[in-house]
Amino acid sequence: MAERLRVAMVGNGFMGAAHSQGWRVAPRFFDLPLQPTMDVLVGRDPGRAGEAAAKWGWGEVSTDWREVVERDDIDVVDIVTPGDSHAEIAIAALEAGKHVLCEKPLANSTVEAEAMTRAAEAASARGIRSMLGFTYRRVPATALARQLIADGRIGEVRHLRASYLQDWLVDPAAPMTWRLEKDRAGSGALGDIGAHAVDLAQYMTGLRLSEVSGVLETFVRRRPLPSGSSSGAIAGSSSSEPATEFGEVTVDDLALFRGRFASGALGTFEASRMATGRKNSLRIEISGSLGSIAFDLENLNALEFYDATEPTVEQGFKTIIVTEPEHPWVDAWWPAGHMLGYEHGFANQAKDFVDAIAAGSPPRPSFADGLHVQRVLDAVEHSSATDGAWVGVADGSD
Amino acid sequence: MAERLRVAMVGNGFMGAAHSQGWRVAPRFFDLPLQPTMDVLVGRDPGRAGEAAAKWGWGEVSTDWREVVERDDIDVVDIVTPGDSHAEIAIAALEAGKHVLCEKPLANSTVEAEAMTRAAEAASARGIRSMLGFTYRRVPATALARQLIADGRIGEVRHLRASYLQDWLVDPAAPMTWRLEKDRAGSGALGDIGAHAVDLAQYMTGLRLSEVSGVLETFVRRRPLPSGSSSGAIAGSSSSEPATEFGEVTVDDLALFRGRFASGALGTFEASRMATGRKNSLRIEISGSLGSIAFDLENLNALEFYDATEPTVEQGFKTIIVTEPEHPWVDAWWPAGHMLGYEHGFANQAKDFVDAIAAGSPPRPSFADGLHVQRVLDAVEHSSATDGAWVGVADGSD
Amino acid sequence: MAERLRVAMVGNGFMGAAHSQGWRVAPRFFDLPLQPTMDVLVGRDPGRAGEAAAKWGWGEVSTDWREVVERDDIDVVDIVTPGDSHAEIAIAALEAGKHVLCEKPLANSTVEAEAMTRAAEAASARGIRSMLGFTYRRVPATALARQLIADGRIGEVRHLRASYLQDWLVDPAAPMTWRLEKDRAGSGALGDIGAHAVDLAQYMTGLRLSEVSGVLETFVRRRPLPSGSSSGAIAGSSSSEPATEFGEVTVDDLALFRGRFASGALGTFEASRMATGRKNSLRIEISGSLGSIAFDLENLNALEFYDATEPTVEQGFKTIIVTEPEHPWVDAWWPAGHMLGYEHGFANQAKDFVDAIAAGSPPRPSFADGLHVQRVLDAVEHSSATDGAWVGVADGSD
Amino acid sequence: MAERLRVAMVGNGFMGAAHSQGWRVAPRFFDLPLQPTMDVLVGRDPGRAGEAAAKWGWGEVSTDWREVVERDDIDVVDIVTPGDSHAEIAIAALEAGKHVLCEKPLANSTVEAEAMTRAAEAASARGIRSMLGFTYRRVPATALARQLIADGRIGEVRHLRASYLQDWLVDPAAPMTWRLEKDRAGSGALGDIGAHAVDLAQYMTGLRLSEVSGVLETFVRRRPLPSGSSSGAIAGSSSSEPATEFGEVTVDDLALFRGRFASGALGTFEASRMATGRKNSLRIEISGSLGSIAFDLENLNALEFYDATEPTVEQGFKTIIVTEPEHPWVDAWWPAGHMLGYEHGFANQAKDFVDAIAAGSPPRPSFADGLHVQRVLDAVEHSSATDGAWVGVADGSD
Repeated sequence: MAERLRVAMVGNGFMGAAHSQGWRVAPRFFDLPLQPTMDVLVGRDPGRAGEAAAKWGWGEVSTDWREVVERDDIDVVDIVTPGDSHAEIAIAALEAGKHVLCEKPLANSTVEAEAMTRAAEAASARGIRSMLGFTYRRVPATALARQLIADGRIGEVRHLRASYLQDWLVDPAAPMTWRLEKDRAGSGALGDIGAHAVDLAQYMTGLRLSEVSGVLETFVRRRPLPSGSSSGAIAGSSSSEPATEFGEVTVDDLALFRGRFASGALGTFEASRMATGRKNSLRIEISGSLGSIAFDLENLNALEFYDATEPTVEQGFKTIIVTEPEHPWVDAWWPAGHMLGYEHGFANQAKDFVDAIAAGSPPRPSFADGLHVQRVLDAVEHSSATDGAWVGVADGSD
Repeated sequence: MAERLRVAMVGNGFMGAAHSQGWRVAPRFFDLPLQPTMDVLVGRDPGRAGEAAAKWGWGEVSTDWREVVERDDIDVVDIVTPGDSHAEIAIAALEAGKHVLCEKPLANSTVEAEAMTRAAEAASARGIRSMLGFTYRRVPATALARQLIADGRIGEVRHLRASYLQDWLVDPAAPMTWRLEKDRAGSGALGDIGAHAVDLAQYMTGLRLSEVSGVLETFVRRRPLPSGSSSGAIAGSSSSEPATEFGEVTVDDLALFRGRFASGALGTFEASRMATGRKNSLRIEISGSLGSIAFDLENLNALEFYDATEPTVEQGFKTIIVTEPEHPWVDAWWPAGHMLGYEHGFANQAKDFVDAIAAGSPPRPSFADGLHVQRVLDAVEHSSATDGAWVGVADGSD
Repeated sequence: MAERLRVAMVGNGFMGAAHSQGWRVAPRFFDLPLQPTMDVLVGRDPGRAGEAAAKWGWGEVSTDWREVVERDDIDVVDIVTPGDSHAEIAIAALEAGKHVLCEKPLANSTVEAEAMTRAAEAASARGIRSMLGFTYRRVPATALARQLIADGRIGEVRHLRASYLQDWLVDPAAPMTWRLEKDRAGSGALGDIGAHAVDLAQYMTGLRLSEVSGVLETFVRRRPLPSGSSSGAIAGSSSSEPATEFGEVTVDDLALFRGRFASGALGTFEASRMATGRKNSLRIEISGSLGSIAFDLENLNALEFYDATEPTVEQGFKTIIVTEPEHPWVDAWWPAGHMLGYEHGFANQAKDFVDAIAAGSPPRPSFADGLHVQRVLDAVEHSSATDGAWVGVADGSD
Repeated sequence: MAERLRVAMVGNGFMGAAHSQGWRVAPRFFDLPLQPTMDVLVGRDPGRAGEAAAKWGWGEVSTDWREVVERDDIDVVDIVTPGDSHAEIAIAALEAGKHVLCEKPLANSTVEAEAMTRAAEAASARGIRSMLGFTYRRVPATALARQLIADGRIGEVRHLRASYLQDWLVDPAAPMTWRLEKDRAGSGALGDIGAHAVDLAQYMTGLRLSEVSGVLETFVRRRPLPSGSSSGAIAGSSSSEPATEFGEVTVDDLALFRGRFASGALGTFEASRMATGRKNSLRIEISGSLGSIAFDLENLNALEFYDATEPTVEQGFKTIIVTEPEHPWVDAWWPAGHMLGYEHGFANQAKDFVDAIAAGSPPRPSFADGLHVQRVLDAVEHSSATDGAWVGVADGSD
């Protein structure tokens, strides 16, 4: 039996459910060199944390992450809180010698992200591993895309188009949440889903963005507050009757930008929470000198591949169903043609993190990868605020 | 905390992994009235069973299903063995007062299936529940299809086309296995995947087949034996050199049939293990007097719906992404647009079985449903053996 | 300037418009060895024929096909009348030394079709050409499919699925027409569209059906007569008020059959006028030992091709857009990616017929090809009338 | 019989073939108030013009457009020359009282486009009609999209994405042509295909772009000259052996830009001749507050429509096959489900132009529409040359 790897997870929101499923399921399908166990769930509210721990199967509950990250009987700290607390928790955990898996975004600010990256690099020298949760790198189809591109199958990358489209804010009656306040969420569509598009584009191509030009827009600028809330309240109605109160939306709901990669390739990026009918549509199409690759998260078991070196009469976009045992991670799952879903990325991620810890090798995406994405997003915001002109990314090197 | 529901699973093959995932995951997402626990795994070979139990997380191991089904500390027996042992185990478990979940096919023969159905009905009178594992009924899209049809949204069903296509036997060098021997597997493509097509067609439409006409074919009639095996060996080569030995394939690799439903509707069915490029493609299209419905398991989060009552200029097949909280089972899973996969049907199935046990109501598909499917398959075999003419299904009533 | 090829067309219905477009357009895109000219349009009703001739651009009008087929200044007779007059016109024209292009079906009965085939073979010996209008052979994608299969790219054909689905009879209020009377139309969905499916399946694979088993169904058995019509009137209402009169539908609106090819391959066929939402959907998928091919007339510029000899991780259905100059006929049309439509098959057909006349070589599909399809349909009808059992096709040889 | 409308066409390249097909076919399908006749083809080279006229069926040939536009027996001048001669010919024709149909782009420069627009407006006062050949407005699906949006079916337009992707320049060995020289072609992908995307986006939405921000790129900057050519020759090799000569590419092969509409909506635009595997893919997706619309020229008979006012469980993108008689122009063509192709836009365009002439009403797109598109493209070029910042479109009003 493999040695245990004792995990504490900080946070109990939606991402907590996903990460829990990853820890729960990974050892049941993969042969892992260490056996992760779900030891402690940390949440601010003891009632909610207790409910979550019981539901998700964590061994015990704590409300004090500082104490937990210092415990000797914890090996891994998995951070799934909102972005504004990532830096503090991650740095403390790394300094305490815990391996850290941190959900994206790395942080809400570049300053924090830089500090985290420094901490991760210092920890790495001591054999402590850290990894960032861009789980779409763990969809077999995107990993296959990266392999094909790295093998030169589409030649030199010239142009890509990435869009991440959702529609949960289309209705102006959709209520105000903390996610729509800049102070707490850091960013809107840009940071939440645009970050995935940037990371995945860079991951698949192996290229890095060096400058960007963009615009951020907010179409619905005030939304009704949930009853009883005072979150960001603004003047609603002066009527004496009970009136709906409204909150001000201070983040973007649409982000459009283009980027130039260090190689000279160009890309178009869109992130929208206003794309009516698109639920969770992350599409990337990459055009190279010898072929093309296209991926769509709404059809995540497939990869489209066009090989321009085939005879002309036979060229076409081929839909590869990425469920063969030879495809990345798939051998551990089901027979060919049995579809994987959203959550499998979290199990694949857990497996890879455990493998890296056991092997003593640095896993990717690293905090440095996350910092770079953060700098890209910063540059987009800066461009948007300065007439949309090109803005260099602070660090475009790899 | 909900009362425990103690499960023993008999069998440790591929279906054991799927059922284990169902029991493991269901209580982590659904609020269940009883708390299923994975108590005992039963397997013939103690080594393999022990490995499987450790891997999948079962509490203990047994090699004696007879003893386990009699234990007082077991509430549910989940049967995932090959079909030839279903009857014996299920009947014993039901008689011992255990709720039984049985993987399809119900049995390898109609005689056995009838006995199981009688046992299930007798047990039901004593409050003991039984259910058959046609899990594709638990894909949200197929359940939505059933709802739409039951609500009259496509009017009177006239015609359907169901095909279940795989390609794992295309290569004549694919080796012999027990699944290709009639004595052990009972049937080939017909019983393995054709059964799913029949059940799903009947489930979605609410109709029952009353007569069928069909043909079974075996394109590759002998296959190399795995080295060291003597499974169904036939004369290979008389050469003095070490020669490949071959086994005789005694089941169909392609089954084509058409059926007439009691309502007068007609259907076309195909089950193939020779459909090059189709990995696990179960497609059903149903044409009614007011609309149509189409489903494809290779795109399982979607349902196609055509509503002929809309204005002519706006009619079209609509792709409903069946991941909204309002869709069946989905509320427990992920936000809209986050895709579910193959295995979620097993968790949904576990949830429904637990609910039925707690509610004291008979779950579907029942053993009687499975018996009916068995009779349809029997009728197809009979038709194939008698010049392809129409053959009545022994029991076409519902 | 190429020598003229003087065409007379008999018939002025929907097919007349399509054939006219073929003659009109072919010489404007292809370099033809003879220059077809639209000389005479023949129609029974002089008013309607005159209107059609003016609209479509025919030089003169006649109401007497017998006289026209004898004229010295006519080289080609193009027959687009309903099927019950094909035999008489075609045989007369061939005997008069005219090349004959005949719209499908070849005839309404096998006896007529045999006579036509004999006439065509006799004429061929005298250098007179005849051809049948299965225009879907002239869609570039189907011709590419035939080439790929002939080149062995999908190996041995094992199984195919062909369906031709329309929905113009779904509504029971759709009025009675002569097309729904067996005496005049010969057949329903089977002969009208099922014939295309059979011909195309045989064309693409190069195989011939040798036996079939099928069922014909009529879901809506009476339909309102158009006002003023007495076509097939049956008792409607005894009310003294003006009542809708109904006609009896005496042909099938759904035909389902399976076939065995002489090679041993099996096929499933469906022809429906009741497939709600499917407008003109002719789909064929062919599974072979080394690959698969799929075609859909609703996406007629594309061909799906699966090559099972590629590395496993890269296999997938490839969508070839069949608009490259290297593809059949395409060089004469538009640049790559500029889509062709339904009517281009008629221009391609006119080109091929003119080429065959100039070259003195027998064009395909021949009348013998049409006779064979007729025999397949006869066998389906016979099977449907005799309990659905297998019925041999009178001539399954090629 | 309708009165004649005598057409002279100036130019004999690829667009000449398309316009000829439009004039040839339109009167054979539509009931036109005037009967267009193909009287004169004008080309610089008498040999090539004569061949084209014979092939396409023009009555006579001329090499002198100035003389032709003055002739009393010509009613319409159809201009299909390269963009650098549009202004001179169109203005002369309008001043001579001829109706003018001009292929896009309106001109190679805004100054010329302004002059043409003034001439068109002056002529309009005298009852002379002019129209620009953005034929994709005449695809039934795009016209249906415009209707749905105008009817408020997707609510307020917020965001659109338009891409026009081709791949004919992917191969660096593809030879130099005049289309790649700025002096002669005016622009590259931007003006050639980006113009279509801009026009179609504005047509479908009814909105106008008021500012843009963009980048132009040329990935392959020199290409081999066709043998014997000296077009734009640059230094190749100093070897004494016969060396390939190269020409300099002076236009963009990729254009990326975003635009803000006067309404506040935002759009992303891409035009590429480097999009490997995309042959003629013009896609537009428009997201509104109540629904979405998507169109793809590679599937031109279909329109995707998402209606967010439907019940949640039934929402989805609906594929409307735009071939019903009730759809724009379709009644004149084929029965439902019989696909139209690229060239039908030219026949629909000819019909609309003839109708407008007969009705004395100004057709669209007008020269003013073309001028506006030109100004958008100018602004994109200006933005690209000035650090990619937002640049106002000279005239964003409608």
